[in-house]
Amino acid sequence: MAPQMANAIRALSMDAVEKAKSGHPGMPMGMADVATVLFTRFMKFDASAPNWPDRDRFVLSAGHGSMLVYSLGYLLGYDGMTIEEIKNFRQLGAKTAGHPEYGHAPAVETTTGPLGQGLANAVGMALGEAHLAARFGDDVVDHHTYVIAGDGCLMEGISQEAISLAGHLKLRKLIVLWDDNNISIDGPISISDSTDQLARFQASGWATLRVDGHDPEAIAEAIEKAKNSDRPTLIACRTVIGYGSPNKGGTSATHGAPLGVDEIAATREALNWPHAPFEIPEDILSQWRAAGTRGAETRQAWEERIAKNPNCEAFKTAMAGDYAGVLTPAINEYKKGLAAEPQKLATRKASELALNVVNDVVGETIGGSADLTGSNNTKTKNLEVLSADNYAGRYVNYGIREHGMAAAMNGLALHGGVVPYAGTFMVFTDYCRPSIRLSALMGIRVVYVMTHDSIGLGEDGPTHQPVEHLAAMRAIPNLNVYRPCDGVETAECWELSLKTIATPSIITLTRQGLAQARLEHTDENLSARGAYVIAGDDDYDVTLVASGSEVSLAIEARETLAKDGVKARVVSAPCFELFANQPESYRAEILGDKPRIGIEAAIRQGWDIFLGPNDSFIGMSSFGASAPANELFEHFGITVSAVVTEAKRLIG
Amino acid sequence: MAPQMANAIRALSMDAVEKAKSGHPGMPMGMADVATVLFTRFMKFDASAPNWPDRDRFVLSAGHGSMLVYSLGYLLGYDGMTIEEIKNFRQLGAKTAGHPEYGHAPAVETTTGPLGQGLANAVGMALGEAHLAARFGDDVVDHHTYVIAGDGCLMEGISQEAISLAGHLKLRKLIVLWDDNNISIDGPISISDSTDQLARFQASGWATLRVDGHDPEAIAEAIEKAKNSDRPTLIACRTVIGYGSPNKGGTSATHGAPLGVDEIAATREALNWPHAPFEIPEDILSQWRAAGTRGAETRQAWEERIAKNPNCEAFKTAMAGDYAGVLTPAINEYKKGLAAEPQKLATRKASELALNVVNDVVGETIGGSADLTGSNNTKTKNLEVLSADNYAGRYVNYGIREHGMAAAMNGLALHGGVVPYAGTFMVFTDYCRPSIRLSALMGIRVVYVMTHDSIGLGEDGPTHQPVEHLAAMRAIPNLNVYRPCDGVETAECWELSLKTIATPSIITLTRQGLAQARLEHTDENLSARGAYVIAGDDDYDVTLVASGSEVSLAIEARETLAKDGVKARVVSAPCFELFANQPESYRAEILGDKPRIGIEAAIRQGWDIFLGPNDSFIGMSSFGASAPANELFEHFGITVSAVVTEAKRLIG
Repeated sequence: MAPQMANAIRALSMDAVEKAKSGHPGMPMGMADVATVLFTRFMKFDASAPNWPDRDRFVLSAGHGSMLVYSLGYLLGYDGMTIEEIKNFRQLGAKTAGHPEYGHAPAVETTTGPLGQGLANAVGMALGEAHLAARFGDDVVDHHTYVIAGDGCLMEGISQEAISLAGHLKLRKLIVLWDDNNISIDGPISISDSTDQLARFQASGWATLRVDGHDPEAIAEAIEKAKNSDRPTLIACRTVIGYGSPNKGGTSATHGAPLGVDEIAATREALNWPHAPFEIPEDILSQWRAAGTRGAETRQAWEERIAKNPNCEAFKTAMAGDYAGVLTPAINEYKKGLAAEPQKLATRKASELALNVVNDVVGETIGGSADLTGSNNTKTKNLEVLSADNYAGRYVNYGIREHGMAAAMNGLALHGGVVPYAGTFMVFTDYCRPSIRLSALMGIRVVYVMTHDSIGLGEDGPTHQPVEHLAAMRAIPNLNVYRPCDGVETAECWELSLKTIATPSIITLTRQGLAQARLEHTDENLSARGAYVIAGDDDYDVTLVASGSEVSLAIEARETLAKDGVKARVVSAPCFELFANQPESYRAEILGDKPRIGIEAAIRQGWDIFLGPNDSFIGMSSFGASAPANELFEHFGITVSAVVTEAKRLIG
Repeated sequence: MAPQMANAIRALSMDAVEKAKSGHPGMPMGMADVATVLFTRFMKFDASAPNWPDRDRFVLSAGHGSMLVYSLGYLLGYDGMTIEEIKNFRQLGAKTAGHPEYGHAPAVETTTGPLGQGLANAVGMALGEAHLAARFGDDVVDHHTYVIAGDGCLMEGISQEAISLAGHLKLRKLIVLWDDNNISIDGPISISDSTDQLARFQASGWATLRVDGHDPEAIAEAIEKAKNSDRPTLIACRTVIGYGSPNKGGTSATHGAPLGVDEIAATREALNWPHAPFEIPEDILSQWRAAGTRGAETRQAWEERIAKNPNCEAFKTAMAGDYAGVLTPAINEYKKGLAAEPQKLATRKASELALNVVNDVVGETIGGSADLTGSNNTKTKNLEVLSADNYAGRYVNYGIREHGMAAAMNGLALHGGVVPYAGTFMVFTDYCRPSIRLSALMGIRVVYVMTHDSIGLGEDGPTHQPVEHLAAMRAIPNLNVYRPCDGVETAECWELSLKTIATPSIITLTRQGLAQARLEHTDENLSARGAYVIAGDDDYDVTLVASGSEVSLAIEARETLAKDGVKARVVSAPCFELFANQPESYRAEILGDKPRIGIEAAIRQGWDIFLGPNDSFIGMSSFGASAPANELFEHFGITVSAVVTEAKRLIG
């Protein structure tokens, strides 16, 4: 009956794609046997409790084959994954989106589609598992992470970052099933690649196996071996793309288009599957449903076991991940100290100080850096390194792998029980942008610490100076971009980042020292307003709106203007997104009714939230240059005197 | 004397960093011996003719070690690379920027610093060489591409895309010298990586060698072997970072900070280098200068040889790369045809048709796609595939390697003699953004063909739907982002892209069919204005500004409004950057004095170039969704009726 169980996946996949008139039947049809073996004999899960924390994780990195996971969802009996959803594949409002989307369909552990991301997410999931197992014991946490990856995933550069990180960290519970079908969209793999993938994975410390992806016993034997490996395992599953399609199988014709009515009929014939579209015979469906709940007893046993475990409460707290109660008082205490003793600090240093507070009260943070620990100030005093020798550590040396790091953080956040943050230079948001986008699309709590946030980094020059990156980050929906101006705002932004569960955060920080701008303590987190008056009152001639390092510049300009009898009001704008969400009346109050000058050492794009056509902007309009920071601000005209001159011009 | 020649590099590097009070002495000091062997015994070049087309190319992928290439520039006697420039390392206006910048200093073949980019550029350079050698004969083109790469370059994902592409294409004249010093910023490599790099490169078809990077004869022997290899070669050079520094050498302390006065004194002692800072003894300098011109005879012989070569003129034309003369008439001819027989086309298809014209008259284009040839429509009728079996081909199957593809295109453009263009989906500009940024920073002619440019791609859903990408691309300085609305504009944008030598271009294109909006032929390339009135005249109540697929929507809205007596003027805006460069008076005319509505199936950011606070925008403010395209436009309110309603509201 096993072949017919796999054929159920094939039939649903080809029929759903046909009905939708678009989609990718080839991959689910090719990997149906592998998936059937995995889900009926190995995956530890309970379809009736999809959020069971100790379930095995399954990641479909080759996300275009979404019908594989939707078919599984329906066949295994996940709540909500009805045959109607399958029939509505790729239609507005359906759970069955073109690519699997986290939060839409059950059994989808991460959003995939952009190739290589799922594989790299899985590294984070496996890392989260290893850490939590070390922290709470393998009686509480002990599960595997399985990935189905395609040739595209393995050709993407991010895969190298992922596999070298996983190999280095010896993530032995990570098992990758490679759909080795020798086909990509443009034709046979041989037209674009000659890599010996097994040798490549071995070079990064992986165990490797090769099997016939249509031989269930061989697949089972390989997975069994992989489960007993002391390192992550790649299983190359030699498959036929579009398996079952007599005329198109084995070719790229099955990759991304419906098979067509005639070929579907021929495939039904070839697979001995006489059933109507979307109809699964009772006996096959019941076997699948049985597979869906075969983990129920294991889960119940686990529930009972952990209820008695001394770590039970701590584990539940970790999985809940709600820190508002502990975080706000601690941050306020810290802010009071800053009000009492103002400090001139680079905000990257201020971030380290705030993180000392955060990491003390939030035991679930997992920090890290892409080989810039001393520059990003991401490692606080008490964090041990998380390594293959010490999974209990809380600081990951991610190596020079910005993209893999960001994707691993997504995986850590998705796994749950940990809160990932990590740093690199702001300019390298470009290197990890696809993963940042997915943090935002999935709506998960990942905190990106991006230091060296402007020409203020100085001599490293334009290759390292972000100019357009604030705008480019602000362009991504559902992403909070913070640019704090001093130690107080930095602490507030950290508080907000940790409390914002369904939106990732980027905290951009300076290399250069900044005067403390907020001198009076407020219990209220003023940064939560997105923008607020930091200096001045209702009696003003001009409003200076600035963020980050330019706030102290604006305050200086205000003082200079005052000497000439011009009254300036300074608005600090640490988060445009939060400001945009303020009530209309508050926004109007902040914008005021006098001329405005926006000041930010970056391009103007995005500033129309604060500026009209008659207002001014002082910032960058080109790439930067290599020179000491103060000379650069002078050279590009981002100075107190430029602000003063422009303010006087504006008020006439 | 050889050791003292290498020590000249070490001394200049440590002294320049010390004087600048910032920089990276460790790498140039570690690789000084390798560089000395390479430049005094192997590199084919003539410092007096830095642009000799058949010179060997040298790429410092580990760009932070910029003092290596600046030291070489001075020592070898490149014009303009004076000792004053060395003394002004990292100062405003100096050629000696913090990281090597193309166009600033001689002997800098590409801008590096963001790790892995140089290695991937070099793949493009070697590919350009192979192609031109096949086209013009190896009597005309026959040179090597050498790269110095660091551990960081090899850890970045882009390196995998680069090496697997190079291995697949059997680029035997590509030789990578890996600075295998076992150190990265955060400490020994062992804290973040365990990869067997030689095995990894072998897995992608490279030859590999390992040498002591401080043994000149061993280095020379390895390079000799590499030059005779039938595949690209990696030479792992085991070095000591900061070689010569007795107390800091071999540690990350030498990586990115001055050694300090005391340690510099100790290093002078250890290296037996008693000379003052920036002082190179006459005998050592003269040996270096001799090395700088030892290629002069070879170059002269080449000049004489090619003057007699039947391919000489064609080769010079290719290297000149000026196509205005042939391109404009051909494009105009094609535009006339479209005016005579208007067509409803997806702009990706229109791009293919325009490319047929371009590729016929520009023999130097090298097309390609990241495994989406049939979707990007990048392969025109007469292009053969460029492969290891046919370097004369003009179409590269780049594989699923967007980042490596973009960086290789940079290398192709930098090499000269070819004009690279290639495609992927618009959403994957995120995957290649670091290389796009470098195209812009370097100011080179690379054409990115980005199809599926909005929610109009439909069912593939939000992972594949660009929403913020137009804004994110427009944010990059010196990058022209084109979004043509029909076949005519698409042809015009291609013409502009090829004629714009010092600015890269992105042509964004639809998956869905669009009505032809431009029905009357103009010899003038109207897209060159950036924005222009495509429908309507001076008598209007409202201006509808749109780009790409939304232009025909605006035209439809205009027709609907006309029925209700409302006069709308439609502005097509295919390129915001070109519009921003128009004279003030023209821009004012286009903006007009009536209310405006911007329409673009993307976020509003960046639209303040056209819209004021009282104007309206119809577009996206969130991620997209998975559904048929027409339903999505309806769902997100980007419709004719929405425009009509908003227009009526605005004019009151």
